[in-house]
Amino acid sequence: MKPTLKDIAALAGVSTAAVSIILNKDNNRFSDETKIKVKSIAKELNYTPNIAAKNLVSRKSNTIGLIIPDIGNPFFSTLAKIIENSLRSLDYTLIIVNANEDYKNDIDLIRFLESRNVDGLLIALSANSYGKEAEVRSVLESIKVPYVLMDRVVDGFDCNQVIFNDKKGSYLATKHAIDMGHTKIGMITTSKNALSGYYRHCGYEKALIEHSIDIDNNIIAYGTYDFESGYELSEELINNGSTVIIAANDLIAFGAIKRARELNKTIPEDISIIGYDNLEIGSILEVELTSVYQNIDNLAEESLKILFDVMNNSKDIKKIVLEPKLIVGTSVCKIIKEC
Amino acid sequence: MKPTLKDIAALAGVSTAAVSIILNKDNNRFSDETKIKVKSIAKELNYTPNIAAKNLVSRKSNTIGLIIPDIGNPFFSTLAKIIENSLRSLDYTLIIVNANEDYKNDIDLIRFLESRNVDGLLIALSANSYGKEAEVRSVLESIKVPYVLMDRVVDGFDCNQVIFNDKKGSYLATKHAIDMGHTKIGMITTSKNALSGYYRHCGYEKALIEHSIDIDNNIIAYGTYDFESGYELSEELINNGSTVIIAANDLIAFGAIKRARELNKTIPEDISIIGYDNLEIGSILEVELTSVYQNIDNLAEESLKILFDVMNNSKDIKKIVLEPKLIVGTSVCKIIKEC
Repeated sequence: MKPTLKDIAALAGVSTAAVSIILNKDNNRFSDETKIKVKSIAKELNYTPNIAAKNLVSRKSNTIGLIIPDIGNPFFSTLAKIIENSLRSLDYTLIIVNANEDYKNDIDLIRFLESRNVDGLLIALSANSYGKEAEVRSVLESIKVPYVLMDRVVDGFDCNQVIFNDKKGSYLATKHAIDMGHTKIGMITTSKNALSGYYRHCGYEKALIEHSIDIDNNIIAYGTYDFESGYELSEELINNGSTVIIAANDLIAFGAIKRARELNKTIPEDISIIGYDNLEIGSILEVELTSVYQNIDNLAEESLKILFDVMNNSKDIKKIVLEPKLIVGTSVCKIIKEC
Repeated sequence: MKPTLKDIAALAGVSTAAVSIILNKDNNRFSDETKIKVKSIAKELNYTPNIAAKNLVSRKSNTIGLIIPDIGNPFFSTLAKIIENSLRSLDYTLIIVNANEDYKNDIDLIRFLESRNVDGLLIALSANSYGKEAEVRSVLESIKVPYVLMDRVVDGFDCNQVIFNDKKGSYLATKHAIDMGHTKIGMITTSKNALSGYYRHCGYEKALIEHSIDIDNNIIAYGTYDFESGYELSEELINNGSTVIIAANDLIAFGAIKRARELNKTIPEDISIIGYDNLEIGSILEVELTSVYQNIDNLAEESLKILFDVMNNSKDIKKIVLEPKLIVGTSVCKIIKEC
């Protein structure tokens, strides 16, 4: 049988109400002696407070909810780990939920975490939110607790957010390929209806246009942010003449590397590859992956700073854009132009 | 203002109690017409049920808690993803919390999730639980909801659990190195006070003893299950004459690979490496990592099966041991004995 407040009250010789207040509210007017007695009995009985009852008194749960689109993507699992560590040091518990890259799950999970009385929410939207902006926006507008959008946001929507400049990142990647002499520059990005993938695609096209290189739809492929997409879509790009593949993230790049090897293509001589995220693992490849670096620590830090400001009743809307940079490895070869 | 049951009742022209029952209990005796009216008004108002109030009626939260030791370790983030997907299809929400490889956090998080009224718990203990068994055990014994231990358990403790045969896994890895002619076989494992690392160490020693190879403490190093441990501890093993390193997981192996490259050692000729987990990423290395494979799908499936059995009042205690196997890549070279 689960011990109740009544059990503790009987053993401590005080009222149930007194037990409830002592266990749920730090600043109360009971004597230290009574407090110690009640708390030690509660501990002895392994008493677990009913969170709802507790919240009736304190109105604070010291819990933050984090919605991430794909826990299997190292970018997001690393982000979750950093946030969790920061929050633990502040005596907050982080609840992590995974939306599996589907905006419908985002919506359900926002409602779920709200009903669980989190003090604040951190949300990285699913890729297919783009194109469903009206629906997602209306849910975001209805959120009753402080929240910050991270990494993936709703375009033009006025709320607290911290993002990376995705257009800039893939612009840098594409420009690097151009500077190395490539003109047949393929891209594997996410579906057009995906948030960051859309901007990464824009940056790629911007660099091509600026350098008067025609956009060739035969060497642009649309997948999802995973290993399989890179593995499955790279062959067509290689067959259609790409000398370099700009991947919208490192997982896609890793999949492309595996497929290229199976096709007996040497990297970077036969096919150059550029990733995005600069995951640690990319640095142990024989050919070190050239990749766009996004500082995840900064993303976590800035998002938490804003969230705590809002939780402390700040009314400012803050939109922070973090700048990526290209880390040049050895996965892009130089093409010498024939005269 | 957050809408209340009273607001919905007023608009629907029914009692507050009726609204509560309709929204919180699937099998109720109200007419379909009333049910549809109440549910559509609740939806229109973006009503979020108070979970505690809901539980007063249904006593079920359709929520499962998952405690993992390190969300940054792909083994556990993949496990979380698989469990989350299975549970979503069963209409359950998964709450994921990260214990950061510290048993004290395990204890806090067990209490936390219990207080959040989860219907069941899946727990993979932190590495340093080993050595704190009495403490961890007493907390496990006090858990009031159904739970299953996964992957990392308390030795000799009688509860529902699904684990891999860790001793067998590293035995297979070590035996493979012996079969390939190695006799200077180093190991990077976790601290002696870690659960699975302890067994992986045992399997390694068992294989050496069986083949009359002396255990050489100069080529055994103790770290944690991460990239940094492999990177930092591998140099000493190489300097002390190891021709092969048995890593207690792939992250350690990846770190060792990076360090070996920096030391201008060729893999596998100068130093062979065997990992554990067989992560997808290991297959894109120029030298394909030989690694112990553990079927994570099986771990997730068996654990969920047991958890739901217990949630359906099964009183049996089930202990399932899943067998690992060695996937042979190209990261171990054959040593030809001199006559």
